[in-house]
Amino acid sequence: MAHRHDPNDGGEFQSPALERLVRGLSRLPGLGRKSATRIALHLVAKESPAAELVEAVNEAREQVRNCSRCGAITEPDPCRICTSERRDPSQLCVVASPVDVLPFEKAGFFRGRYFVLGGLLSPLDGVRADDLPFDRLASRIDEDGVAEIIIALDASVEGETTALYVQRLFEGRDLRLSRLATGIPVGGALAYTDEVTLQRAFQFRRGF
Amino acid sequence: MAHRHDPNDGGEFQSPALERLVRGLSRLPGLGRKSATRIALHLVAKESPAAELVEAVNEAREQVRNCSRCGAITEPDPCRICTSERRDPSQLCVVASPVDVLPFEKAGFFRGRYFVLGGLLSPLDGVRADDLPFDRLASRIDEDGVAEIIIALDASVEGETTALYVQRLFEGRDLRLSRLATGIPVGGALAYTDEVTLQRAFQFRRGF
Repeated sequence: MAHRHDPNDGGEFQSPALERLVRGLSRLPGLGRKSATRIALHLVAKESPAAELVEAVNEAREQVRNCSRCGAITEPDPCRICTSERRDPSQLCVVASPVDVLPFEKAGFFRGRYFVLGGLLSPLDGVRADDLPFDRLASRIDEDGVAEIIIALDASVEGETTALYVQRLFEGRDLRLSRLATGIPVGGALAYTDEVTLQRAFQFRRGF
Repeated sequence: MAHRHDPNDGGEFQSPALERLVRGLSRLPGLGRKSATRIALHLVAKESPAAELVEAVNEAREQVRNCSRCGAITEPDPCRICTSERRDPSQLCVVASPVDVLPFEKAGFFRGRYFVLGGLLSPLDGVRADDLPFDRLASRIDEDGVAEIIIALDASVEGETTALYVQRLFEGRDLRLSRLATGIPVGGALAYTDEVTLQRAFQFRRGF
């Protein structure tokens, strides 16, 4: 396509500043050039939410941190889940990333605490056991008197590898080790279930 | 769904600041709560592009304006299209919004100038002829010696109404009035063309 513009003169806009904003926005996760353009035009419009958004970004960057005990997203450190007396210290849910805490807290059924690994073992990507905080996990188990570890990792190769590693690391201890069930999602249609999930659901079938 | 949180305590996050950022982002056009969460976490992460983005937003808000002659997005005022001697002042393309200039400039075939109405006539939404700058359009036609007006408006009811209004307003003058062709898009499959478009394409069929 014939494009008469120099790449630095503002792209299809008559404004290098707008072009820079669109490029910056389109590097955010999930945003393409079209959505970035729409947002950029919204931000430079007269009744723009830009000032409030900039303030919200700055405030979040100041306030938000990872809990030094469990790794979850928090403002106070340690986080409220680690310090709350209403959470059961004997149940520890091991997750890969801080965002994995969110679906549990949204559902609200889990009354224990969390431990965020910050990653998964992946020989291909060079993530080895030394790179993950397994020693901190071990001391946490001792300190809190953890009786059950629930491993809640992705059902990927890396997730399975890490789950097995955790299992082997702690299987000598007086500790219940469990992991999330694999099977057909609630509301999921049998006909559209992929073969691996179906095989797992069959393999782990339960008696009535 | 059971949600144990007070709406002001940070939602599913343990951080009111992060919750405010997610809410602010999810009010941007095209962003839902999930994409806003993803972007917010990216913005508070250690290697965040937040500082550059904030600067880009502020700079764009300072620099970007609408051309006082044509209404297009620009930094200099009047814009480069209005002042360029390489653009033909006798052809004036009438569009609804500043963003409608972009596809023309990207394609690069149009050598005339633009006039942005800033809206479309819409009796239902209370947009009447007095609300749109038809008087400025008339003086622009006189000043620039415009010989042809190309109406490039959405193929919606409001677009058609506005196109007809412009046509009636200027039909007494020594002026060529045209509008974009309606038909099957280039590369479009006949079988998947909607009936209205097909009927228009048939109605406006051309001889070889």
